[in-house]
Amino acid sequence: MRAAYPYWSEVPTRWNDNDVYGHVNNSVHYAAMDTVINRWMIEQGLLDINDGDSIGLCVESGCRYLAPIEYPDVLAVGLRIARLGNSSVTWEVGLVRARDQLSVAEGRFVHVFVDAQTRRPRPLSDRHRTAMEALLVDGAAVTAR
Amino acid sequence: MRAAYPYWSEVPTRWNDNDVYGHVNNSVHYAAMDTVINRWMIEQGLLDINDGDSIGLCVESGCRYLAPIEYPDVLAVGLRIARLGNSSVTWEVGLVRARDQLSVAEGRFVHVFVDAQTRRPRPLSDRHRTAMEALLVDGAAVTAR
Amino acid sequence: MRAAYPYWSEVPTRWNDNDVYGHVNNSVHYAAMDTVINRWMIEQGLLDINDGDSIGLCVESGCRYLAPIEYPDVLAVGLRIARLGNSSVTWEVGLVRARDQLSVAEGRFVHVFVDAQTRRPRPLSDRHRTAMEALLVDGAAVTAR
Amino acid sequence: MRAAYPYWSEVPTRWNDNDVYGHVNNSVHYAAMDTVINRWMIEQGLLDINDGDSIGLCVESGCRYLAPIEYPDVLAVGLRIARLGNSSVTWEVGLVRARDQLSVAEGRFVHVFVDAQTRRPRPLSDRHRTAMEALLVDGAAVTAR
Repeated sequence: MRAAYPYWSEVPTRWNDNDVYGHVNNSVHYAAMDTVINRWMIEQGLLDINDGDSIGLCVESGCRYLAPIEYPDVLAVGLRIARLGNSSVTWEVGLVRARDQLSVAEGRFVHVFVDAQTRRPRPLSDRHRTAMEALLVDGAAVTAR
Repeated sequence: MRAAYPYWSEVPTRWNDNDVYGHVNNSVHYAAMDTVINRWMIEQGLLDINDGDSIGLCVESGCRYLAPIEYPDVLAVGLRIARLGNSSVTWEVGLVRARDQLSVAEGRFVHVFVDAQTRRPRPLSDRHRTAMEALLVDGAAVTAR
Repeated sequence: MRAAYPYWSEVPTRWNDNDVYGHVNNSVHYAAMDTVINRWMIEQGLLDINDGDSIGLCVESGCRYLAPIEYPDVLAVGLRIARLGNSSVTWEVGLVRARDQLSVAEGRFVHVFVDAQTRRPRPLSDRHRTAMEALLVDGAAVTAR
Repeated sequence: MRAAYPYWSEVPTRWNDNDVYGHVNNSVHYAAMDTVINRWMIEQGLLDINDGDSIGLCVESGCRYLAPIEYPDVLAVGLRIARLGNSSVTWEVGLVRARDQLSVAEGRFVHVFVDAQTRRPRPLSDRHRTAMEALLVDGAAVTAR
Protein backbone atom coordinates (compact mmCIF):
# COMPACT_ATOMS: atom_id res chain seq x y z
CA MET A 1 0.00 0.00 0.00
CA ARG A 2 3.02 2.26 0.56
CA ALA A 3 3.51 3.30 -3.07
CA ALA A 4 -0.09 4.41 -3.50
CA TYR A 5 0.20 7.37 -1.12
CA PRO A 6 2.87 10.08 -1.40
CA TYR A 7 2.85 11.21 2.28
CA TRP A 8 3.15 8.96 5.30
CA SER A 9 3.11 9.66 9.01
CA GLU A 10 2.62 7.52 12.10
CA VAL A 11 -0.05 7.38 14.79
CA PRO A 12 0.84 5.02 17.64
CA THR A 13 -2.16 3.30 19.16
CA ARG A 14 -3.09 3.89 22.80
CA TRP A 15 -4.17 1.52 25.55
CA ASN A 16 -7.77 2.73 25.48
CA ASP A 17 -8.06 2.48 21.67
CA ASN A 18 -8.66 -1.25 22.12
CA ASP A 19 -12.29 -1.98 22.78
CA VAL A 20 -13.79 -4.99 24.49
CA TYR A 21 -13.15 -7.17 21.43
CA GLY A 22 -9.40 -6.61 21.85
CA HIS A 23 -8.96 -4.51 18.70
CA VAL A 24 -8.62 -0.82 18.01
CA ASN A 25 -12.20 0.48 17.86
CA ASN A 26 -13.49 1.55 14.43
CA SER A 27 -13.78 5.23 15.45
CA VAL A 28 -10.05 5.46 16.16
CA HIS A 29 -9.26 5.07 12.46
CA TYR A 30 -11.09 8.36 11.85
CA ALA A 31 -9.16 10.08 14.64
CA ALA A 32 -5.95 8.83 13.01
CA MET A 33 -6.97 10.11 9.56
CA ASP A 34 -7.98 13.50 10.98
CA THR A 35 -4.70 13.73 12.91
CA VAL A 36 -2.50 13.02 9.90
CA ILE A 37 -4.46 15.19 7.44
CA ASN A 38 -4.20 18.14 9.82
CA ARG A 39 -0.55 17.32 10.57
CA TRP A 40 0.26 17.53 6.88
CA MET A 41 -1.58 20.84 6.55
CA ILE A 42 0.21 22.28 9.61
CA GLU A 43 3.60 21.13 8.26
CA GLN A 44 2.81 22.80 4.93
CA GLY A 45 1.83 26.04 6.65
CA LEU A 46 -1.75 25.68 5.42
CA LEU A 47 -3.44 25.46 8.81
CA ASP A 48 -3.00 27.67 11.85
CA ILE A 49 -5.43 26.32 14.44
CA ASN A 50 -5.49 29.49 16.54
CA ASP A 51 -5.02 32.33 14.09
CA GLY A 52 -5.68 31.04 10.58
CA ASP A 53 -8.37 32.58 8.41
CA SER A 54 -9.63 29.33 6.93
CA ILE A 55 -10.31 25.92 8.41
CA GLY A 56 -11.38 22.60 6.91
CA LEU A 57 -14.63 21.09 8.16
CA CYS A 58 -15.41 17.42 7.56
CA VAL A 59 -18.60 16.99 5.53
CA GLU A 60 -18.22 13.32 4.70
CA SER A 61 -16.06 10.41 5.79
CA GLY A 62 -15.88 6.68 5.26
CA CYS A 63 -13.68 3.68 5.93
CA ARG A 64 -13.31 0.08 4.81
CA TYR A 65 -11.68 -2.10 7.45
CA LEU A 66 -9.38 -4.75 6.02
CA ALA A 67 -7.71 -6.20 9.11
CA PRO A 68 -7.82 -5.56 12.84
CA ILE A 69 -4.99 -3.75 14.60
CA GLU A 70 -4.28 -3.73 18.33
CA TYR A 71 -2.53 -1.57 20.87
CA PRO A 72 0.49 -1.59 21.23
CA ASP A 73 0.86 -1.48 17.43
CA VAL A 74 1.63 1.66 15.44
CA LEU A 75 -0.54 2.83 12.54
CA ALA A 76 1.26 4.25 9.52
CA VAL A 77 -1.09 6.58 7.70
CA GLY A 78 -0.71 7.49 4.03
CA LEU A 79 -2.34 10.47 2.31
CA ARG A 80 -3.30 11.37 -1.20
CA ILE A 81 -5.90 13.66 -2.72
CA ALA A 82 -8.49 12.24 -5.09
CA ARG A 83 -10.24 15.51 -5.93
CA LEU A 84 -9.58 19.21 -5.54
CA GLY A 85 -12.78 21.19 -5.87
CA ASN A 86 -13.36 24.89 -5.60
CA SER A 87 -13.57 24.89 -1.82
CA SER A 88 -13.43 21.16 -1.08
CA VAL A 89 -10.77 18.48 -0.92
CA THR A 90 -11.32 14.74 -1.06
CA TRP A 91 -8.58 12.95 0.86
CA GLU A 92 -7.88 9.27 0.48
CA VAL A 93 -6.10 7.61 3.32
CA GLY A 94 -4.30 4.29 3.62
CA LEU A 95 -3.73 2.75 7.04
CA VAL A 96 -1.15 0.02 7.51
CA ARG A 97 0.41 -1.66 10.52
CA ALA A 98 3.86 -0.09 10.69
CA ARG A 99 5.82 -3.17 11.75
CA ASP A 100 4.86 -5.34 8.77
CA GLN A 101 2.91 -3.17 6.32
CA LEU A 102 -0.29 -5.16 6.82
CA SER A 103 -3.13 -3.26 5.12
CA VAL A 104 -5.50 -2.26 7.91
CA ALA A 105 -7.99 0.12 6.30
CA GLU A 106 -8.76 2.49 3.46
CA GLY A 107 -10.48 5.73 4.31
CA ARG A 108 -11.95 8.81 2.75
CA PHE A 109 -12.40 12.29 4.16
CA VAL A 110 -14.04 15.26 2.46
CA HIS A 111 -13.12 18.69 3.80
CA VAL A 112 -14.88 21.89 2.90
CA PHE A 113 -12.77 24.93 3.60
CA VAL A 114 -14.62 27.71 5.36
CA ASP A 115 -13.86 31.13 6.73
CA ALA A 116 -12.69 30.63 10.32
CA GLN A 117 -15.04 33.34 11.59
CA THR A 118 -18.19 33.10 9.49
CA ARG A 119 -17.87 29.35 8.82
CA ARG A 120 -19.04 29.97 5.24
CA PRO A 121 -17.32 28.08 2.38
CA ARG A 122 -14.50 29.93 0.64
CA PRO A 123 -12.41 28.99 -2.36
CA LEU A 124 -9.13 27.23 -1.67
CA SER A 125 -6.28 29.74 -1.71
CA ASP A 126 -3.59 29.39 -4.38
CA ARG A 127 -1.21 28.39 -1.62
CA HIS A 128 -3.51 25.56 -0.51
CA ARG A 129 -4.08 24.46 -4.08
CA THR A 130 -0.42 24.42 -5.03
CA ALA A 131 0.59 22.41 -1.99
CA MET A 132 -2.30 20.00 -2.36
CA GLU A 133 -1.57 19.30 -6.01
CA ALA A 134 1.55 17.47 -4.84
CA LEU A 135 -0.73 14.87 -3.25
CA LEU A 136 -3.11 14.54 -6.19
CA VAL A 137 -3.31 11.06 -7.59
CA ASP A 138 -2.47 10.64 -11.27
CA GLY A 139 -5.34 11.30 -13.54
CA ALA A 140 -7.50 12.95 -10.88
CA ALA A 141 -9.79 15.63 -12.15
CA VAL A 142 -8.83 19.10 -10.95
CA THR A 143 -11.38 21.85 -11.04
CA ALA A 144 -10.13 24.69 -13.18
CA ARG A 145 -9.14 27.65 -11.03
CA MET B 1 -35.95 12.45 9.95
CA ARG B 2 -37.84 10.76 12.80
CA ALA B 3 -40.27 8.79 10.63
CA ALA B 4 -37.51 7.26 8.54
CA TYR B 5 -36.05 5.15 11.36
CA PRO B 6 -38.12 2.74 13.51
CA TYR B 7 -35.85 2.72 16.61
CA TRP B 8 -34.50 5.77 18.41
CA SER B 9 -32.23 6.18 21.40
CA GLU B 10 -30.23 9.07 22.83
CA VAL B 11 -26.52 9.72 23.24
CA PRO B 12 -25.80 12.88 25.26
CA THR B 13 -22.66 14.67 24.15
CA ARG B 14 -19.72 15.07 26.52
CA TRP B 15 -17.48 18.02 27.27
CA ASN B 16 -14.50 16.50 25.46
CA ASP B 17 -16.52 15.60 22.35
CA ASN B 18 -16.14 19.23 21.26
CA ASP B 19 -12.90 19.77 19.40
CA VAL B 20 -10.98 22.98 18.94
CA TYR B 21 -13.51 24.23 16.38
CA GLY B 22 -16.23 24.18 19.05
CA HIS B 23 -18.23 21.31 17.54
CA VAL B 24 -18.54 17.65 18.30
CA ASN B 25 -15.63 16.00 16.46
CA ASN B 26 -16.49 13.87 13.41
CA SER B 27 -15.29 10.65 15.07
CA VAL B 28 -17.87 10.98 17.87
CA HIS B 29 -20.70 10.35 15.41
CA TYR B 30 -19.28 6.88 14.82
CA ALA B 31 -19.03 6.23 18.57
CA ALA B 32 -22.69 7.25 18.87
CA MET B 33 -23.76 4.95 16.02
CA ASP B 34 -21.79 2.03 17.49
CA THR B 35 -23.27 2.68 20.94
CA VAL B 36 -26.87 2.69 19.74
CA ILE B 37 -26.54 -0.26 17.36
CA ASN B 38 -25.07 -2.37 20.17
CA ARG B 39 -27.64 -1.01 22.65
CA TRP B 40 -30.45 -2.19 20.39
CA MET B 41 -28.84 -5.63 20.02
CA ILE B 42 -28.34 -5.94 23.79
CA GLU B 43 -31.96 -4.90 24.43
CA GLN B 44 -33.11 -7.53 21.94
CA GLY B 45 -31.01 -10.21 23.59
CA LEU B 46 -28.89 -10.57 20.46
CA LEU B 47 -25.56 -9.55 21.97
CA ASP B 48 -23.94 -10.73 25.17
CA ILE B 49 -20.58 -8.95 25.31
CA ASN B 50 -18.99 -11.37 27.77
CA ASP B 51 -20.55 -14.73 27.03
CA GLY B 52 -22.19 -14.57 23.61
CA ASP B 53 -21.18 -16.93 20.84
CA SER B 54 -21.35 -14.39 18.04
CA ILE B 55 -20.24 -10.78 17.77
CA GLY B 56 -20.58 -8.14 15.04
CA LEU B 57 -17.37 -6.66 13.64
CA CYS B 58 -17.44 -3.43 11.67
CA VAL B 59 -16.11 -3.91 8.14
CA GLU B 60 -17.27 -0.62 6.66
CA SER B 61 -18.63 2.68 7.92
CA GLY B 62 -19.46 6.09 6.56
CA CYS B 63 -21.11 9.36 7.48
CA ARG B 64 -22.42 12.50 5.79
CA TYR B 65 -22.39 15.50 8.11
CA LEU B 66 -25.35 17.84 7.61
CA ALA B 67 -25.02 20.27 10.52
CA PRO B 68 -22.68 20.73 13.48
CA ILE B 69 -23.75 19.79 16.99
CA GLU B 70 -22.12 20.92 20.23
CA TYR B 71 -21.84 19.78 23.81
CA PRO B 72 -24.07 20.18 25.85
CA ASP B 73 -26.59 19.01 23.22
CA VAL B 74 -28.05 15.53 23.09
CA LEU B 75 -27.88 13.35 19.95
CA ALA B 76 -30.97 11.31 19.14
CA VAL B 77 -29.91 8.33 17.04
CA GLY B 78 -32.30 6.43 14.75
CA LEU B 79 -31.69 2.95 13.37
CA ARG B 80 -32.92 0.98 10.40
CA ILE B 81 -31.48 -1.88 8.41
CA ALA B 82 -30.92 -1.49 4.69
CA ARG B 83 -29.71 -5.00 3.95
CA LEU B 84 -29.65 -8.34 5.71
CA GLY B 85 -27.08 -10.63 4.14
CA ASN B 86 -26.11 -14.15 5.08
CA SER B 87 -23.72 -13.08 7.82
CA SER B 88 -23.74 -9.31 7.39
CA VAL B 89 -26.05 -6.44 8.31
CA THR B 90 -26.05 -2.97 6.78
CA TRP B 91 -27.29 -0.44 9.33
CA GLU B 92 -28.44 3.02 8.37
CA VAL B 93 -28.36 5.60 11.09
CA GLY B 94 -29.96 9.03 11.42
CA LEU B 95 -28.55 11.53 13.88
CA VAL B 96 -30.62 14.54 14.96
CA ARG B 97 -30.29 17.15 17.68
CA ALA B 98 -32.81 16.01 20.28
CA ARG B 99 -34.05 19.44 21.33
CA ASP B 100 -35.23 20.56 17.90
CA GLN B 101 -34.90 17.59 15.53
CA LEU B 102 -32.22 19.34 13.45
CA SER B 103 -30.75 16.77 11.04
CA VAL B 104 -27.11 16.38 12.05
CA ALA B 105 -25.82 13.41 10.07
CA GLU B 106 -26.65 10.25 8.15
CA GLY B 107 -24.44 7.25 8.73
CA ARG B 108 -23.88 3.72 7.58
CA PHE B 109 -22.37 0.77 9.39
CA VAL B 110 -21.75 -2.71 7.99
CA HIS B 111 -21.37 -5.49 10.53
CA VAL B 112 -20.18 -8.98 9.74
CA PHE B 113 -21.17 -11.46 12.40
CA VAL B 114 -18.40 -13.78 13.44
CA ASP B 115 -17.91 -16.57 15.94
CA ALA B 116 -16.76 -14.94 19.19
CA GLN B 117 -13.88 -17.39 19.55
CA THR B 118 -12.60 -18.08 16.05
CA ARG B 119 -13.60 -14.67 14.64
CA ARG B 120 -14.71 -16.42 11.42
CA PRO B 121 -17.94 -15.27 9.73
CA ARG B 122 -21.05 -17.27 10.59
CA PRO B 123 -24.60 -17.05 9.27
CA LEU B 124 -26.99 -14.84 11.23
CA SER B 125 -29.05 -16.95 13.60
CA ASP B 126 -32.81 -17.13 13.05
CA ARG B 127 -33.20 -15.15 16.24
CA HIS B 128 -30.98 -12.36 14.92
CA ARG B 129 -32.73 -12.41 11.56
CA THR B 130 -36.23 -12.28 12.98
CA ALA B 131 -35.44 -9.37 15.31
CA MET B 132 -33.56 -7.47 12.63
CA GLU B 133 -36.37 -7.79 10.08
CA ALA B 134 -38.36 -5.39 12.27
CA LEU B 135 -35.83 -2.68 11.38
CA LEU B 136 -35.69 -3.48 7.66
CA VAL B 137 -36.67 -0.56 5.46
CA ASP B 138 -39.56 -1.16 3.07
CA GLY B 139 -38.52 -2.75 -0.14
CA ALA B 140 -35.10 -3.75 1.07
CA ALA B 141 -33.74 -6.92 -0.43
CA VAL B 142 -33.49 -9.77 2.07
CA THR B 143 -31.23 -12.66 1.31
CA ALA B 144 -33.19 -15.89 1.25
CA ARG B 145 -32.41 -17.97 4.32
CA MET C 1 -23.73 7.98 48.22
CA ARG C 2 -26.77 9.91 46.96
CA ALA C 3 -27.27 12.06 50.08
CA ALA C 4 -23.67 13.25 50.10
CA TYR C 5 -23.95 15.29 46.89
CA PRO C 6 -26.64 17.95 46.29
CA TYR C 7 -26.64 17.84 42.44
CA TRP C 8 -26.91 14.73 40.31
CA SER C 9 -26.87 14.21 36.56
CA GLU C 10 -26.38 11.19 34.33
CA VAL C 11 -23.71 10.19 31.83
CA PRO C 12 -24.62 7.04 29.88
CA THR C 13 -21.61 4.92 29.00
CA ARG C 14 -20.68 4.31 25.35
CA TRP C 15 -19.59 1.18 23.53
CA ASN C 16 -16.00 2.34 23.20
CA ASP C 17 -15.70 3.33 26.89
CA ASN C 18 -15.11 -0.34 27.66
CA ASP C 19 -11.48 -1.23 27.27
CA VAL C 20 -9.98 -4.63 26.61
CA TYR C 21 -10.62 -5.71 30.21
CA GLY C 22 -14.38 -5.31 29.64
CA HIS C 23 -14.81 -2.32 31.95
CA VAL C 24 -15.15 1.39 31.40
CA ASN C 25 -11.58 2.68 31.13
CA ASN C 26 -10.28 4.78 34.03
CA SER C 27 -9.97 7.94 31.87
CA VAL C 28 -13.72 7.93 31.15
CA HIS C 29 -14.50 8.75 34.78
CA TYR C 30 -12.67 12.06 34.30
CA ALA C 31 -14.61 12.79 31.11
CA ALA C 32 -17.82 12.14 33.05
CA MET C 33 -16.79 14.45 35.90
CA ASP C 34 -15.80 17.20 33.46
CA THR C 35 -19.07 16.81 31.57
CA VAL C 36 -21.26 17.11 34.66
CA ILE C 37 -19.31 19.95 36.29
CA ASN C 38 -19.58 21.97 33.08
CA ARG C 39 -23.23 20.94 32.63
CA TRP C 40 -24.04 22.33 36.08
CA MET C 41 -22.20 25.58 35.31
CA ILE C 42 -23.98 25.96 31.96
CA GLU C 43 -27.38 25.30 33.59
CA GLN C 44 -26.58 27.94 36.21
CA GLY C 45 -25.62 30.46 33.54
CA LEU C 46 -22.03 30.52 34.81
CA LEU C 47 -20.34 29.22 31.68
CA ASP C 48 -20.79 30.34 28.10
CA ILE C 49 -18.34 28.25 26.08
CA ASN C 50 -18.28 30.56 23.09
CA ASP C 51 -18.76 34.03 24.48
CA GLY C 52 -18.12 33.93 28.22
CA ASP C 53 -15.42 36.11 29.77
CA SER C 54 -14.16 33.50 32.23
CA ILE C 55 -13.46 29.80 31.92
CA GLY C 56 -12.39 27.14 34.41
CA LEU C 57 -9.14 25.30 33.70
CA CYS C 58 -8.36 22.01 35.44
CA VAL C 59 -5.17 22.26 37.51
CA GLU C 60 -5.55 19.06 39.48
CA SER C 61 -7.70 15.95 39.38
CA GLY C 62 -7.89 12.61 41.09
CA CYS C 63 -10.08 9.54 41.39
CA ARG C 64 -10.44 6.48 43.62
CA TYR C 65 -12.07 3.57 41.84
CA LEU C 66 -14.37 1.51 44.04
CA ALA C 67 -16.04 -0.85 41.57
CA PRO C 68 -15.94 -1.44 37.83
CA ILE C 69 -18.77 -0.30 35.58
CA GLU C 70 -19.49 -1.46 32.04
CA TYR C 71 -21.25 -0.24 28.93
CA PRO C 72 -24.26 -0.37 28.62
CA ASP C 73 -24.63 0.96 32.19
CA VAL C 74 -25.39 4.57 33.05
CA LEU C 75 -23.21 6.61 35.41
CA ALA C 76 -25.01 8.91 37.84
CA VAL C 77 -22.66 11.71 38.81
CA GLY C 78 -23.05 13.75 42.00
CA LEU C 79 -21.42 17.12 42.65
CA ARG C 80 -20.46 19.09 45.70
CA ILE C 81 -17.86 21.76 46.38
CA ALA C 82 -15.27 21.17 49.08
CA ARG C 83 -13.52 24.55 48.84
CA LEU C 84 -14.19 27.93 47.29
CA GLY C 85 -10.98 29.90 46.97
CA ASN C 86 -10.41 33.33 45.53
CA SER C 87 -10.21 32.12 41.94
CA SER C 88 -10.35 28.35 42.43
CA VAL C 89 -13.01 25.76 43.13
CA THR C 90 -12.45 22.26 44.47
CA TRP C 91 -15.18 19.95 43.23
CA GLU C 92 -15.87 16.57 44.78
CA VAL C 93 -17.65 14.09 42.61
CA GLY C 94 -19.45 10.86 43.40
CA LEU C 95 -20.02 8.29 40.67
CA VAL C 96 -22.59 5.56 41.09
CA ARG C 97 -24.17 3.00 38.78
CA ALA C 98 -27.63 4.44 38.12
CA ARG C 99 -29.57 1.19 38.11
CA ASP C 100 -28.60 0.09 41.62
CA GLN C 101 -26.65 2.93 43.25
CA LEU C 102 -23.46 0.87 43.40
CA SER C 103 -20.63 3.21 44.41
CA VAL C 104 -18.27 3.28 41.43
CA ALA C 105 -15.76 6.04 42.20
CA GLU C 106 -15.00 9.21 44.14
CA GLY C 107 -13.28 11.99 42.28
CA ARG C 108 -11.81 15.41 42.76
CA PHE C 109 -11.38 18.25 40.31
CA VAL C 110 -9.73 21.62 40.97
CA HIS C 111 -10.64 24.42 38.60
CA VAL C 112 -8.88 27.76 38.43
CA PHE C 113 -11.00 30.40 36.79
CA VAL C 114 -9.16 32.48 34.23
CA ASP C 115 -9.95 35.27 31.85
CA ALA C 116 -11.11 33.64 28.60
CA GLN C 117 -8.75 35.81 26.53
CA THR C 118 -5.60 36.26 28.60
CA ARG C 119 -5.92 32.91 30.44
CA ARG C 120 -4.75 34.66 33.63
CA PRO C 121 -6.47 33.79 36.93
CA ARG C 122 -9.28 36.11 37.99
CA PRO C 123 -11.38 36.17 41.15
CA LEU C 124 -14.66 34.29 41.04
CA SER C 125 -17.51 36.67 40.27
CA ASP C 126 -20.19 37.20 42.90
CA ARG C 127 -22.58 35.36 40.63
CA HIS C 128 -20.28 32.33 40.48
CA ARG C 129 -19.71 32.43 44.22
CA THR C 130 -23.38 32.69 45.13
CA ALA C 131 -24.39 29.80 42.89
CA MET C 132 -21.48 27.65 44.00
CA GLU C 133 -22.22 28.16 47.70
CA ALA C 134 -25.32 26.03 47.18
CA LEU C 135 -23.03 23.07 46.49
CA LEU C 136 -20.65 23.72 49.39
CA VAL C 137 -20.44 20.86 51.83
CA ASP C 138 -21.29 21.64 55.44
CA GLY C 139 -18.43 23.00 57.40
CA ALA C 140 -16.28 23.73 54.36
CA ALA C 141 -14.04 26.71 54.72
CA VAL C 142 -15.03 29.57 52.45
CA THR C 143 -12.50 32.22 51.66
CA ALA C 144 -13.80 35.60 52.77
CA ARG C 145 -14.79 37.68 49.78
CA MET D 1 12.17 16.56 34.79
CA ARG D 2 14.06 14.05 32.62
CA ALA D 3 16.50 12.87 35.31
CA ALA D 4 13.73 12.08 37.78
CA TYR D 5 12.29 9.18 35.78
CA PRO D 6 14.34 6.20 34.52
CA TYR D 7 12.07 5.19 31.58
CA TRP D 8 10.74 7.51 28.90
CA SER D 9 8.46 6.93 25.94
CA GLU D 10 6.46 9.21 23.67
CA VAL D 11 2.75 9.70 23.05
CA PRO D 12 2.03 12.04 20.14
CA THR D 13 -1.12 14.09 20.62
CA ARG D 14 -4.05 13.71 18.23
CA TRP D 15 -6.30 16.25 16.60
CA ASN D 16 -9.27 15.40 18.79
CA ASP D 17 -7.26 15.55 22.03
CA ASN D 18 -7.63 19.33 21.90
CA ASP D 19 -10.87 20.43 23.48
CA VAL D 20 -12.78 23.62 22.89
CA TYR D 21 -10.26 25.63 24.91
CA GLY D 22 -7.55 24.73 22.39
CA HIS D 23 -5.54 22.49 24.74
CA VAL D 24 -5.23 18.78 25.21
CA ASN D 25 -8.14 17.82 27.48
CA ASN D 26 -7.28 16.78 31.04
CA SER D 27 -8.48 13.18 30.52
CA VAL D 28 -5.90 12.61 27.76
CA HIS D 29 -3.06 12.80 30.28
CA TYR D 30 -4.49 9.70 31.95
CA ALA D 31 -4.74 7.89 28.62
CA ALA D 32 -1.08 8.76 28.01
CA MET D 33 0.00 7.50 31.44
CA ASP D 34 -1.96 4.25 30.99
CA THR D 35 -0.49 3.77 27.51
CA VAL D 36 3.12 4.16 28.63
CA ILE D 37 2.78 2.12 31.84
CA ASN D 38 1.31 -0.76 29.86
CA ARG D 39 3.87 -0.27 27.08
CA TRP D 40 6.68 -0.69 29.60
CA MET D 41 5.07 -3.81 31.05
CA ILE D 42 4.57 -5.31 27.58
CA GLU D 43 8.18 -4.55 26.62
CA GLN D 44 9.36 -6.23 29.84
CA GLY D 45 7.25 -9.30 29.12
CA LEU D 46 5.12 -8.64 32.22
CA LEU D 47 1.80 -8.14 30.46
CA ASP D 48 0.18 -10.30 27.82
CA ILE D 49 -3.19 -8.65 27.11
CA ASN D 50 -4.77 -11.72 25.56
CA ASP D 51 -3.22 -14.68 27.33
CA GLY D 52 -1.57 -13.43 30.53
CA ASP D 53 -2.61 -14.78 33.90
CA SER D 54 -2.44 -11.47 35.74
CA ILE D 55 -3.54 -7.95 34.83
CA GLY D 56 -3.19 -4.60 36.58
CA LEU D 57 -6.39 -2.75 37.42
CA CYS D 58 -6.31 0.97 38.23
CA VAL D 59 -7.65 1.63 41.74
CA GLU D 60 -6.49 5.22 42.08
CA SER D 61 -5.11 7.95 39.84
CA GLY D 62 -4.30 11.61 40.04
CA CYS D 63 -2.65 14.42 38.10
CA ARG D 64 -1.34 17.93 38.69
CA TYR D 65 -1.37 20.02 35.53
CA LEU D 66 1.57 22.39 35.25
CA ALA D 67 1.23 23.76 31.72
CA PRO D 68 -1.10 23.26 28.79
CA ILE D 69 -0.04 21.24 25.75
CA GLU D 70 -1.65 21.27 22.32
CA TYR D 71 -1.94 19.01 19.31
CA PRO D 72 0.30 18.73 17.24
CA ASP D 73 2.81 18.50 20.11
CA VAL D 74 4.28 15.24 21.36
CA LEU D 75 4.11 14.19 25.02
CA ALA D 76 7.19 12.52 26.46
CA VAL D 77 6.15 10.37 29.39
CA GLY D 78 8.54 9.32 32.16
CA LEU D 79 7.92 6.45 34.58
CA ARG D 80 9.13 5.54 38.03
CA ILE D 81 7.72 3.45 40.85
CA ALA D 82 7.18 5.03 44.24
CA ARG D 83 5.96 1.93 46.06
CA LEU D 84 5.90 -1.80 45.46
CA GLY D 85 3.32 -3.46 47.68
CA ASN D 86 2.35 -7.09 47.93
CA SER D 87 -0.04 -6.94 44.99
CA SER D 88 -0.01 -3.23 44.19
CA VAL D 89 2.30 -0.82 42.39
CA THR D 90 2.30 2.96 42.73
CA TRP D 91 3.53 4.52 39.50
CA GLU D 92 4.67 8.13 39.30
CA VAL D 93 4.60 9.68 35.89
CA GLY D 94 6.20 12.82 34.49
CA LEU D 95 4.78 14.41 31.34
CA VAL D 96 6.85 16.90 29.36
CA ARG D 97 6.50 18.51 25.95
CA ALA D 98 9.03 16.61 23.85
CA ARG D 99 10.27 19.51 21.75
CA ASP D 100 11.46 21.67 24.66
CA GLN D 101 11.11 19.62 27.86
CA LEU D 102 8.44 21.94 29.25
CA SER D 103 6.98 20.28 32.35
CA VAL D 104 3.34 19.59 31.51
CA ALA D 105 2.05 17.42 34.36
CA GLU D 106 2.89 15.04 37.19
CA GLY D 107 0.67 12.02 37.61
CA ARG D 108 0.11 9.04 39.83
CA PHE D 109 -1.39 5.67 39.06
CA VAL D 110 -2.01 2.81 41.50
CA HIS D 111 -2.39 -0.63 39.98
CA VAL D 112 -3.58 -3.68 41.86
CA PHE D 113 -2.60 -6.89 40.14
CA VAL D 114 -5.38 -9.43 39.91
CA ASP D 115 -5.88 -12.86 38.45
CA ALA D 116 -7.01 -12.37 34.85
CA GLN D 117 -9.91 -14.80 35.29
CA THR D 118 -11.18 -14.32 38.83
CA ARG D 119 -10.18 -10.64 39.07
CA ARG D 120 -9.08 -11.24 42.68
CA PRO D 121 -5.83 -9.64 43.91
CA ARG D 122 -2.74 -11.82 43.72
CA PRO D 123 0.81 -11.16 44.89
CA LEU D 124 3.21 -9.72 42.34
CA SER D 125 5.28 -12.49 40.77
CA ASP D 126 9.03 -12.49 41.33
CA ARG D 127 9.43 -11.63 37.67
CA HIS D 128 7.21 -8.56 38.04
CA ARG D 129 8.95 -7.54 41.22
CA THR D 130 12.47 -7.87 39.83
CA ALA D 131 11.68 -5.86 36.71
CA MET D 132 9.80 -3.20 38.63
CA GLU D 133 12.60 -2.68 41.14
CA ALA D 134 14.59 -1.10 38.30
CA LEU D 135 12.07 1.74 38.27
CA LEU D 136 11.92 2.19 42.05
CA VAL D 137 12.90 5.63 43.18
CA ASP D 138 15.77 5.84 45.63
CA GLY D 139 14.78 5.36 49.21
CA ALA D 140 11.33 4.01 48.38
CA ALA D 141 10.00 1.49 50.85
CA VAL D 142 9.72 -2.00 49.40
CA THR D 143 7.45 -4.50 51.06
CA ALA D 144 9.45 -7.55 52.11
CA ARG D 145 8.68 -10.46 49.84
